[in-house]
Amino acid sequence: MNPRALSEWLQQWFRKGTGEPAYRQLYRLLRQCILEGRLHAGTRLPASRELATDLSISRNTVLQAYEQLTEEGYVSAAVGRGTFVEDISHELPVQIEPPSAGPGTDSEPGMSRSLSKRGERLITSLGYSERQHGAFMAGVPDVTEFPVQQWLRIHNRHWRRLRPELLSYAPSGGYPPLRQALSDYLQASRSVNGAASQVVVTSGIHQVLDVVIRMLCDPGDRVWVEEPAYWGIRNLLISHGMDVVGIPVDIEGMNPTTEQMRRPPRLIVVTPSHQYPLGMVMSLARRRRILEYARQHHCWILEDDYDSDFRYGGRPLPSLQGLDEAALVIYAGSFSKTLYPGLRLGYAVAPASVAPALAAGVAELYREGQLMAQAVMAEFLREGFVSSHMRRVRSLYAARRDRLIVAVQAHYGSKLEIVGDKAGLHLVLALPDHVDDAHICREAYLRGIMARPLSMYYLRPERAKKGLVLGYACVREDEIDPAFAILAGVIDAELNA
Amino acid sequence: MNPRALSEWLQQWFRKGTGEPAYRQLYRLLRQCILEGRLHAGTRLPASRELATDLSISRNTVLQAYEQLTEEGYVSAAVGRGTFVEDISHELPVQIEPPSAGPGTDSEPGMSRSLSKRGERLITSLGYSERQHGAFMAGVPDVTEFPVQQWLRIHNRHWRRLRPELLSYAPSGGYPPLRQALSDYLQASRSVNGAASQVVVTSGIHQVLDVVIRMLCDPGDRVWVEEPAYWGIRNLLISHGMDVVGIPVDIEGMNPTTEQMRRPPRLIVVTPSHQYPLGMVMSLARRRRILEYARQHHCWILEDDYDSDFRYGGRPLPSLQGLDEAALVIYAGSFSKTLYPGLRLGYAVAPASVAPALAAGVAELYREGQLMAQAVMAEFLREGFVSSHMRRVRSLYAARRDRLIVAVQAHYGSKLEIVGDKAGLHLVLALPDHVDDAHICREAYLRGIMARPLSMYYLRPERAKKGLVLGYACVREDEIDPAFAILAGVIDAELNA
Repeated sequence: MNPRALSEWLQQWFRKGTGEPAYRQLYRLLRQCILEGRLHAGTRLPASRELATDLSISRNTVLQAYEQLTEEGYVSAAVGRGTFVEDISHELPVQIEPPSAGPGTDSEPGMSRSLSKRGERLITSLGYSERQHGAFMAGVPDVTEFPVQQWLRIHNRHWRRLRPELLSYAPSGGYPPLRQALSDYLQASRSVNGAASQVVVTSGIHQVLDVVIRMLCDPGDRVWVEEPAYWGIRNLLISHGMDVVGIPVDIEGMNPTTEQMRRPPRLIVVTPSHQYPLGMVMSLARRRRILEYARQHHCWILEDDYDSDFRYGGRPLPSLQGLDEAALVIYAGSFSKTLYPGLRLGYAVAPASVAPALAAGVAELYREGQLMAQAVMAEFLREGFVSSHMRRVRSLYAARRDRLIVAVQAHYGSKLEIVGDKAGLHLVLALPDHVDDAHICREAYLRGIMARPLSMYYLRPERAKKGLVLGYACVREDEIDPAFAILAGVIDAELNA
Repeated sequence: MNPRALSEWLQQWFRKGTGEPAYRQLYRLLRQCILEGRLHAGTRLPASRELATDLSISRNTVLQAYEQLTEEGYVSAAVGRGTFVEDISHELPVQIEPPSAGPGTDSEPGMSRSLSKRGERLITSLGYSERQHGAFMAGVPDVTEFPVQQWLRIHNRHWRRLRPELLSYAPSGGYPPLRQALSDYLQASRSVNGAASQVVVTSGIHQVLDVVIRMLCDPGDRVWVEEPAYWGIRNLLISHGMDVVGIPVDIEGMNPTTEQMRRPPRLIVVTPSHQYPLGMVMSLARRRRILEYARQHHCWILEDDYDSDFRYGGRPLPSLQGLDEAALVIYAGSFSKTLYPGLRLGYAVAPASVAPALAAGVAELYREGQLMAQAVMAEFLREGFVSSHMRRVRSLYAARRDRLIVAVQAHYGSKLEIVGDKAGLHLVLALPDHVDDAHICREAYLRGIMARPLSMYYLRPERAKKGLVLGYACVREDEIDPAFAILAGVIDAELNA
């Protein structure tokens, strides 16, 4: 499309009075054109003044949309010449050049200058998304609700009375007052038992798992994960050469077969509070059984408590760690869901026998810093801002969840089942086995809607159930219906294919 | 010591008019008592009012010292009861409990609930320090010189006009405008060739190496590192199961033996601009030779350019990457030395063939965020604040380096040689082979002085040269003489032992 054709297309689709801010709608439409390939790399966008006139909006609105596209890398501005569409082919499902043996030929086989075997394997199973906010991104909270003023007040105070130690590398375990604040907070909110010296501050749950693998497991060690499970955990384990075994889950949570139990793992990774992504809660009987099994067979357990703070109806269950009498559970959590993911602050609470080693591992292997953020966080937590923020957004998310459920049921009645909607930031829309859920998600992405195929969470494709993992927390309530309408169009096309 | 005895000890050692702020001196003396074990865990510190009277200083000064000790975890305050010394045994050289087979006995051998083999190996060769600022911490700049006002101005502006995308997880490669700013900056300052799409933002050089190992190397692959080299690189490689080969360095830099050259590695890690820790610059002839060797044998080269911005006399040499015509060099740098380590912002510039895979690896394996800091950094860099800051601190560091050299020569004349003082943030004080440099460093640490034993930078102890790696950048000029006097006392005791 040339600038003229684009302007006409926009006049056709741009709607006033939808509730969506005008700049945002314009941004979304332009992004859609770029992602769908209607606008090729190098195309010039219409001049802001002309487009504003064509659409009867202010020039500032156009500039705001262009600015957001620029900052996200979809377009770039050349001073005095206009705004041009960027090459975003790298934005779409990652394209990696095939391994090349390079110009020479005098090398051993396998020594070609290419990706490693594990690197190639990782590239074929990537789970991350280039876009991380909007309908229906799973696992991302509404970051616009973050109490910025309270955070900045503490932040700027710490910068004004600067202590040099806070700008250098972190001591092992992290900033001592944050370790203490976390110990208190997790005891009160999650029944986690652990002194400040057992708390290890990390950049997130990913890093907890990474350091646990490196300090407690050797390559080839067997590790149990739930089937299905978060793809990030699986990819991390595989990249480290672990022997990953998928353990089925039922309504009570992780449920290993007799055959699987005959070969004890070194490490068990589990989400007892809220199975990811299916949402069941591990029963007390099952909790006791897994703790006893791990005690007998000297396994470590990593309890991934990624979003248990959000339950709609009923209180969150206490942690598995709180039941552990044999000091074998490492509890992991983060502020990614409660505050915002980009903060990169997570934590482990580990048995006293192993906490110093994990703390040393973090300091040595990642050379962490971010003590400023840790100091701000310690105060933020102590002053109760995390708890009050969570109380506020919990009701907000509950309303969004309800709205999404209504939208699904209005469209599908009881034809499609909703799973795992009692807690967390997402639900699962179950689909029939013959449906290609990954294809639905690719098509939806091109229309500006994010969804995760349930099948990607399975280690073994032949066991994969089909469905869509839909996050509702970072979608404004009034955006849910129109966004779901787009998604339903894609689903229906696939169901009827 | 009871509170009374402590007060008397402090009256004996506390000096006014030394130039050091009073609260800082008091903090330092108290910390020394705790680290040396004079004050046991649980001991109550003197009441602030009494101690202020005893030392003839203001009560606020005492409170300031207590506050810093509290925030660093040396003491803790119990409301209404006083301030008590904490258990800091975990602060000293890490104590890890011996592996225990746990209560049961019904497990296979090797399945005991303990550290992994590689975890135990890492624990025995830890290099990080619990303290990270002051005389003579190597590799840490003077963070008190960081232009806080300029940074906060940009930072707060970004928070005020908040865009939700900046608080979520990062897209692969990092924030697009920062990638562009880095591409421009590194081209101008270091002759690094690479478009924005070849720049991968990371949390530091550690993470660049980590992702390179994981995307480009498989366990067991051979990797060349310099001998000596930064301990962090070596430990990271070993933890990943690489076959690490130490390559000798001479005055022209890395110089593999004929025997070593017969077995080409998968990856070569090298510090051509300023060998770490010895400080030589790789000659142009040697650069060409290593590039040609890597081209012929399909090796990757990781160029670690950790502190080349600081040269005293002469301009920094252009990067090795700038000479690379075969697209095999991955250039790595960070803002840890130029701005402050706790910022955790680093970058790689990779060949176009592999940059998308490294970018995807970072997004997938670490789930990075910190886009806010990346956005602030992009503007900070574009506005020239990095360059102007560096010009300013360069002359400051040069003066500190001169002062340290004068102090060394005043004490030792030509008896001990100074190595690698032309650039960077540290120099090496060479010691005779029979000296236990690690013992000197442990003794100095107890007296509040940090130094690194040169021997710890060697892969093979039998090749280790002895010496002290002394950082001068984060030591105020007037603190250098008294700090070196303490260190010289420890060195002399060892030399005469």
